[in-house]
Amino acid sequence: MSEKRLSIEEATGLVVETLLRCRTSRPNAEAVARALIGAELAGQAGHGLRRMPSYCAQALSGKVDGMAMPQTTETRPGALTVDAAHGFAYPALERALEWLPDAARGQGVAIAGIRRSHHCGVTGLFVERLAEAGIVGLMIANSPAAMAPWGGKRALFGTNPIAFAAPLEGAEPLVIDISLSKVARGKIMAAKQKGVSIPEGWALDTEGNATTDPAAALAGTMVPMGDVKGTALALMVEMLCAGLTGANYAYEATSFFEAEGVPPGTGQTLIAIDPTAFGAGATARFAEMAGLIDEMDGARLPGRRRQALKRELTRAGIPADRELLQQIGVIGL
Amino acid sequence: MSEKRLSIEEATGLVVETLLRCRTSRPNAEAVARALIGAELAGQAGHGLRRMPSYCAQALSGKVDGMAMPQTTETRPGALTVDAAHGFAYPALERALEWLPDAARGQGVAIAGIRRSHHCGVTGLFVERLAEAGIVGLMIANSPAAMAPWGGKRALFGTNPIAFAAPLEGAEPLVIDISLSKVARGKIMAAKQKGVSIPEGWALDTEGNATTDPAAALAGTMVPMGDVKGTALALMVEMLCAGLTGANYAYEATSFFEAEGVPPGTGQTLIAIDPTAFGAGATARFAEMAGLIDEMDGARLPGRRRQALKRELTRAGIPADRELLQQIGVIGL
Repeated sequence: MSEKRLSIEEATGLVVETLLRCRTSRPNAEAVARALIGAELAGQAGHGLRRMPSYCAQALSGKVDGMAMPQTTETRPGALTVDAAHGFAYPALERALEWLPDAARGQGVAIAGIRRSHHCGVTGLFVERLAEAGIVGLMIANSPAAMAPWGGKRALFGTNPIAFAAPLEGAEPLVIDISLSKVARGKIMAAKQKGVSIPEGWALDTEGNATTDPAAALAGTMVPMGDVKGTALALMVEMLCAGLTGANYAYEATSFFEAEGVPPGTGQTLIAIDPTAFGAGATARFAEMAGLIDEMDGARLPGRRRQALKRELTRAGIPADRELLQQIGVIGL
Repeated sequence: MSEKRLSIEEATGLVVETLLRCRTSRPNAEAVARALIGAELAGQAGHGLRRMPSYCAQALSGKVDGMAMPQTTETRPGALTVDAAHGFAYPALERALEWLPDAARGQGVAIAGIRRSHHCGVTGLFVERLAEAGIVGLMIANSPAAMAPWGGKRALFGTNPIAFAAPLEGAEPLVIDISLSKVARGKIMAAKQKGVSIPEGWALDTEGNATTDPAAALAGTMVPMGDVKGTALALMVEMLCAGLTGANYAYEATSFFEAEGVPPGTGQTLIAIDPTAFGAGATARFAEMAGLIDEMDGARLPGRRRQALKRELTRAGIPADRELLQQIGVIGL
């Protein structure tokens, strides 16, 4: 697999120019570029440029409306309803991120609920932006059905990420970003492509039995992190980002990859909290806890690895597979 | 172990009369009674009457100020600061629960942060009360240090519960209530008392190695649910309910059991969301998801078991160990 290094400008140009050929508006294409490149810089290539072929196919088929304009309504002083209008998730997320910091400062806490949305990539990126604006951020999102209620066989929940970021006095933000499956579904898809088996404990077949066959695993369900407790959290995420916002539940959502079918219509919810809401000193206290973890042998502060990688890749360029670049380069021509 | 059944009135009388003999005001004693009996009715006896001897000893030693009056300040339209004033957590939690529903209805979302607090028992009870008031509730709390950052040896985080409840149209609320350790610390304490070993995977010794010796486990750290992901969530909880609110972090908090030392000063944070904040229909949608889980073979809707038990124990009485009752009966005489 031969690789090329792309500067951020080159990668941005590639994403924007390609999407412009796929019934997508320039502002939307630019928002997608920021998110995909952000994912690459965070070391999450599975949510990066690799998504372009399927994003473009969905924009061309109309499953994603590339021209959509997200509609926002401040339904309460502390609540913003965002209708992503079956476009890409990123323009809708950016509208939420513009509104949340001031609303949080004014109200103490503010919430944005996004519906009729799509794949939102690396959730940590969005809470990190809130933390960079001095705000504590919490984000949850759902994705097509992959996990069953504990003890059940039918997948009702997505692998549903939870992300959290906090501003630290005198340091870069702490960023937590986890999905609620034990391992990422992409790892099972990769094993299937390579024709290798997966470790037991990652997934269950359609009968709810442990399996090491990636095809059976993809037809079945993912094992949640923390077993029954992780399933409970996945249910909580479904309720907060879909039941609450009017988005589709995981079991109602179509694939984030396939170009056929109706839009997935998933949801995202962001909660922003002013760190001074309960008095001064919270960011210093956050830094105190973070410092203890940072200096502990064997431990690692969540977010530090991605921040170091971002500096490194901003300097050295984003590694991109030449075959993928070639594939993207001819889309829509 | 011989048991007696107590009616709710009898159990309330026992708790209140005993605490009144232990430098505790009547309103505070009544709030403690509601919480301990609520724990019993939820089948969580470890947070129930069994806590009385240590609660009373702490009130008598002054580690808990039984006369404390929680102070609340609406620091923002959507934020309530609650100073539990080193009293019991429950009176402070009740102040938060009185304020949150209206604030959530007005602002869309509201947050209460409690500091200088203490053991808060069954977190699910408090979000359940929000759901009974028609509000979506999220609660997190910290507890004395029990879990280390992933890969580290020193415990910085408590076993930190996360609770969530949602009102369901036409049904009792859904209630999720999990702690972030793989198993409850009480199970290890019970094994130590019985002189039996614990399964591998529950806890680590002071060197960070797996152990089956309950004494080594109690001296060491608990394994988080979901391994590294659970540790990340425990860190998030510390930041939200202690760093943010001005409470003590787990590693700064003294025991919830011992009568000696300074007060634990832990924290609790509650977030309340109006289910109509993003439009109508959320409680019907919550009920839709809940219904699918309820009717799924092998699966169980979180909260249903405790609700059934509550009905059963309200009718039949709360089972209480006679030895414990005798012990409580003479406290402070």
